[in-house]
This record gives sequence, C-alpha cells and structure tokens, in this order.
Amino acid sequence: MKRITILLVAVAAVVGIVAYMTCASGQADKEAAPIFVKEIPPGYRDWKVVSVAHEAGDLNDIRVVLGNDIAIKAYRDGKLPFPEGAIVGRIAWSYVSSEENNKSFGRDQSFVAGLPTDFYLQFMVKDSKKYAATGGWGYSSFDKDGKPTDEAVMKKCFPCHQAIKDRDFVFTRYAP
Amino acid sequence: MKRITILLVAVAAVVGIVAYMTCASGQADKEAAPIFVKEIPPGYRDWKVVSVAHEAGDLNDIRVVLGNDIAIKAYRDGKLPFPEGAIVGRIAWSYVSSEENNKSFGRDQSFVAGLPTDFYLQFMVKDSKKYAATGGWGYSSFDKDGKPTDEAVMKKCFPCHQAIKDRDFVFTRYAP
Repeated sequence: MKRITILLVAVAAVVGIVAYMTCASGQADKEAAPIFVKEIPPGYRDWKVVSVAHEAGDLNDIRVVLGNDIAIKAYRDGKLPFPEGAIVGRIAWSYVSSEENNKSFGRDQSFVAGLPTDFYLQFMVKDSKKYAATGGWGYSSFDKDGKPTDEAVMKKCFPCHQAIKDRDFVFTRYAP
Repeated sequence: MKRITILLVAVAAVVGIVAYMTCASGQADKEAAPIFVKEIPPGYRDWKVVSVAHEAGDLNDIRVVLGNDIAIKAYRDGKLPFPEGAIVGRIAWSYVSSEENNKSFGRDQSFVAGLPTDFYLQFMVKDSKKYAATGGWGYSSFDKDGKPTDEAVMKKCFPCHQAIKDRDFVFTRYAP
C-alpha cells in the first residue's frame, strides 16, 4: 500500500512538473514571439470609412481609419467583440498646411494629407485562435514601400491596445 | 425709301433691345438663382476615400472627402474634367481632443471626429448641362438633420471653387 502511495505521488509530481513546464513554455513563447501580420490586406484602399483623426507630436499625421466589410458591419451594428475576419486599418499621411486652400479661405486654417508617413499603413486582423496571445488581433504596420515595421516596435501594439480591452482592443469609434 | 429705312432702324432697335433683355435676363437668372442640389446622394457613407483634412478657424472640423465610383475612377486615372455623374462628397465632424487616446500616448496629441458640424455634408454633382452656370457642378450642403444650407451661403460655393478651375473646380487631391 505504501509503495503504491509513493508511486502515485511520484507520478503526480512528474505530471505536475510537465504540465507546469508546458504552460510556462507556452507563455514564454507567446511573450517572446507574438505573431505579427506581414501582408497588406488586398483592396484596403477601397474600404469604407470608420473615422478620421489627427495625431500631433512626433507622429504629426492625419489619418483615416477604414474597415473591411466584416468590421464595418460590426461597427454599424454596435456589436462587440468583432467577429472573426474583421480587419480595421488605418492610413496615415503627413500633416501639411495647404497654401492653396488657405488662399481661398483667406486665412491659414487648412491642413491636408501629404506624403505617406513612416508608419503609413497599419492593420488589426481578427483571428481569435491565431492571435490568441494578443487579444485575438494580429497587428501589422508598413511603410510607404510596404516594408513591415521592426518587430521591436510592433511589440508595443498590444500592450497599448490593452487600455481599451472593453471595446475589444479597438481605439477608433465609428463616426456618424 | 426714307420711311422703309426708319422702319428698319426701328425694327432693328426693337430686336436689339429684346435680344439684350433676353441675354441680360438669362444672365440675371443664372446669377440670381443657380441650381443647387437638394438631395443627399444615397449610399454616400459607403463611398471610397479621396483624402482627409482639418479645417481650423471658424469651421474647426476634421473631414473626409469621398467619391462615388465615377469620381474615384477619374481621380485614380488622373483624368480631367470629371465625367458626367461624378460626385465628390465630404463629411465634416467637429474637431475634438481625445482624452482616451492622449492617455495611451502619454501626451496631448490626439484629435478625433466628434459630432457632425453645421455644414455636416457637402457634395458636388457633375452635370455639365444642368449646372452649366456653375462650371458644370451642382453644389449641395446639409446639416446633421439633412436640412439644406441657406441659398445665400450656397452662392459662395462656385465663386470660391473658381480658384481651381484648372482642376475642374475640385480642391481636394487624391491621397496616395
């Protein structure tokens, strides 16, 4: 009876250790290497408008946030979380004063979209399984030549988006 | 012979006066009552993006410029003048600071779309015949309730757009 008890304890200990290691290893993998999206979604320039924004400071851009049909439907229905396949994208152009417009308005008031910025295109792709480590969203970012942003920078996406976990990690609200 | 001459002069004078009056009346009609568009084009919120802008000053808005399929094709093909049926639209929201975004960025830099402005929706509809008096474009403007802007204000559209006659009266350039 004593031998069986010792054996069971030993087995339980081994199972426990293996289980712990698997879990820890899984976490380490997720933290060390979240999966980023490396492809620009085709046709994004035809997508519908979610909203617009101006980021001053270092970014100094003017931007439009777009959604593919799945994302736009979810936005318009006011349904969260976003369904699988939803993609929210944004295009950022440098924020430039328009001399031409100012002349017509008779005052310096007009700021328009200039050239693409270093973080020209960014997308969030919803796939709960594939991107489970980052809230079900895969993040991507590209410069004007379609070159993906460095992974060191990309690792900042999810921590920042966690601030709005209650809106399924999506900052931008649908503009009326 | 003298009588005939006098008669001809008199007839010519009358014809001349009538012709002058018709022309003046035609001009007066065009100037006094250009044709404005009173209907919001259906489905405009689904249109593709031309560009974005921020108007400071009294307008204090952030806006997106959209085009129907005819307008977008012309923009992308770089073809001027815009073909018949092209519609260029813009939606303007109040320009508001986003406390939520600023918190995440760690600085006050984020400005987003708020509520619709008094000049929420504006459109230019291309119909060379119907709107011949205003460069082939019919202008429209609506508040958030869909109420057309006063005609006294609308009369300022075309004179202002004449500044960019060489781009077929359309200010906004297509953003890359």
